[in-house]
Amino acid sequence: MQSFFERRGPRLDTTLPSVRHVQELIRIRTPVNVVLLSGQEYDGVIRWQDIHYLAMSTEPGTPLLLISLAAIASLRALN
Amino acid sequence: MQSFFERRGPRLDTTLPSVRHVQELIRIRTPVNVVLLSGQEYDGVIRWQDIHYLAMSTEPGTPLLLISLAAIASLRALN
Amino acid sequence: MQSFFERRGPRLDTTLPSVRHVQELIRIRTPVNVVLLSGQEYDGVIRWQDIHYLAMSTEPGTPLLLISLAAIASLRALN
Amino acid sequence: MQSFFERRGPRLDTTLPSVRHVQELIRIRTPVNVVLLSGQEYDGVIRWQDIHYLAMSTEPGTPLLLISLAAIASLRALN
Amino acid sequence: MQSFFERRGPRLDTTLPSVRHVQELIRIRTPVNVVLLSGQEYDGVIRWQDIHYLAMSTEPGTPLLLISLAAIASLRALN
Amino acid sequence: MQSFFERRGPRLDTTLPSVRHVQELIRIRTPVNVVLLSGQEYDGVIRWQDIHYLAMSTEPGTPLLLISLAAIASLRALN
Repeated sequence: MQSFFERRGPRLDTTLPSVRHVQELIRIRTPVNVVLLSGQEYDGVIRWQDIHYLAMSTEPGTPLLLISLAAIASLRALN
Repeated sequence: MQSFFERRGPRLDTTLPSVRHVQELIRIRTPVNVVLLSGQEYDGVIRWQDIHYLAMSTEPGTPLLLISLAAIASLRALN
Repeated sequence: MQSFFERRGPRLDTTLPSVRHVQELIRIRTPVNVVLLSGQEYDGVIRWQDIHYLAMSTEPGTPLLLISLAAIASLRALN
Repeated sequence: MQSFFERRGPRLDTTLPSVRHVQELIRIRTPVNVVLLSGQEYDGVIRWQDIHYLAMSTEPGTPLLLISLAAIASLRALN
Repeated sequence: MQSFFERRGPRLDTTLPSVRHVQELIRIRTPVNVVLLSGQEYDGVIRWQDIHYLAMSTEPGTPLLLISLAAIASLRALN
Repeated sequence: MQSFFERRGPRLDTTLPSVRHVQELIRIRTPVNVVLLSGQEYDGVIRWQDIHYLAMSTEPGTPLLLISLAAIASLRALN
């Protein structure tokens, strides 16, 4: 139970097209390419998103990769 | 129906010149060039925008490219 | 007509020296140099500004260049 | 005792998946790899997190390394 | 006269040490060195500051240089 | 005396572990290493912090170096 002092912060606004676009990619487990501002690129499947991070499976058997939303330059489904 | 707990976040403020400029580029499907802070450049047509991302069609038949607004350095119509 | 649900976001605060400085550059069509965090530089005349972007005419007959305020490192009148 | 004037700022929102993911990594002292936007990488164990920083032990006997959350590109458990 | 709709935004908080430090550099016209995140460096005298920009005189007779606060890495008096 | 119109902005939240960690480094004058997103590094002693900047003494007799918190990648005590 969330304590009175630990007010819930802002939620993902699922009325936004970009949030719904990513929710759909998660739902149908679409492989995506994510390019960061630093130039790094990651291919994988997005498992979940919240207001700070995307969580991706990149290679089978490797732990989840958390990518900071503030670091993302672009994101695109791979097929 | 948006649940009581999933309050709607801030909307695109369509009274702002920059938001209206991009809405017009979307409406008349104008090809644009977008340059990111990382130096990457994308040419294409903007399909939609929200408070976090621009969605662009870059090449026919390829999935939508979501570009983070925070990553954009400059944006210009190509004609 | 702006719908009740599309509340107007924050306006340019024209009591700020930096906003008034740019408004004056716009008013008297002063050529300026804008340097971005990415190192890119643009010379031109600022047409308008809002809380997210500057709009510049860089070369005659070319479309407006929208520059993200978050990408700006420095800005200076050229004369 | 927190003075009336020193209102408590926002807390970590432990209902967010990303906050809980890191809390779990802290709880079971999982070695992680953190990559920053600048390209720097750090391996170590996260000791605590708050809304501005992660605190990591990188090598035995060395002081805590505070990493700014705004600088993080990606974070992943090492096993 | 500021219209009802153009509410004044946040002011410089002159109780903060960093704001007062810069106000003092302005008051006694101290030459400073400002280094930006992009690596660019500027020497000059700060004329004014607001919540978005510093305004510097860099060379005699040249227009004011506006530097975005978000682009600043470090700032130091030169003597 | 702070005028009615110059409302005080947010204070440092000294209940946060990261703020208290830095306050302790200030209190016992611990030499620290600060690495910025741009790759620049500074060694010195932190004199004070507020919600925008850290102020460091780097070499004896040189003026204070103000480092923007938004530019910090990592911070660590040197012993």
